[in-house]
Amino acid sequence: MDTQFELIPIGHVERPDPQFDAAEFFDPSRESVIAIDPDWGPALTGLEEYSHLIVLFWLDRAERPTEAPGLRPAESRAELPPVGLFAIRTPRRPNPIGMCVVRLLRREGSRLHVTGLDAWNGTPVLDLKGYNRRDDMRPDATHPDWLERLWAIHDAER
Amino acid sequence: MDTQFELIPIGHVERPDPQFDAAEFFDPSRESVIAIDPDWGPALTGLEEYSHLIVLFWLDRAERPTEAPGLRPAESRAELPPVGLFAIRTPRRPNPIGMCVVRLLRREGSRLHVTGLDAWNGTPVLDLKGYNRRDDMRPDATHPDWLERLWAIHDAER
Repeated sequence: MDTQFELIPIGHVERPDPQFDAAEFFDPSRESVIAIDPDWGPALTGLEEYSHLIVLFWLDRAERPTEAPGLRPAESRAELPPVGLFAIRTPRRPNPIGMCVVRLLRREGSRLHVTGLDAWNGTPVLDLKGYNRRDDMRPDATHPDWLERLWAIHDAER
Repeated sequence: MDTQFELIPIGHVERPDPQFDAAEFFDPSRESVIAIDPDWGPALTGLEEYSHLIVLFWLDRAERPTEAPGLRPAESRAELPPVGLFAIRTPRRPNPIGMCVVRLLRREGSRLHVTGLDAWNGTPVLDLKGYNRRDDMRPDATHPDWLERLWAIHDAER
């Protein structure tokens, strides 16, 4: 493999609830910290002017498929239609890169306090980008009907 | 380095304008193809139900910093304030992962026809995710003032 395809962690996720608890994990007001390695700290300058960040992270505890697996529904919920892995946000991906848009509360040096981060405690962080309207907002985007049903299930459960 | 931090290309970008030409590159109606390796083709099932996709790709021609570089303005434009690399979309990142939201025109087997892809011809593709309102839309997002100025420059130039 080409050595150019190697990643380095630039920091890690710190959660207040290190043991996974669904209610805490999905609480939208729950504050997490993205602890960037101090060596990279200067490169964060100006990031605090964004209200939201795109966080890319390494799904280090996910099983990684080496070939296309069979179709399955989101979260293996039998009431939803089976689809390919790229149509869902499963962590079991050929390149297990997670992406999440978070609200940035504040930057304290190389520590970023955020809400809405869908990553476990200790997850290696790969990249940060400021979220902006022109590149990242698509108000006319449409998605599969089953995704609306999944959200209704989430709203009822959480 | 932990071997878990290695990426594989799942396909490549094919552009109609293989030699870079700014006018063609940034033409929002210009159609590109994301050619996914046929082995991963079945995993695309259902992706065509999204109007927009998030594409993650490897910035294979970008210089990769091994430590935090000095502050600089977006696109080295002297009229903008110097900031750290994470505050701009420079390809020169510790992990050179590009991200772009594209419009999906159609899927033909393992070939995805899209517009709005900000990646060069031949760029290795790492991951695809369907864009959706709940995870990816943040209508209340705010960004730095200088970004508005950069967009005004782009609108005048392109």
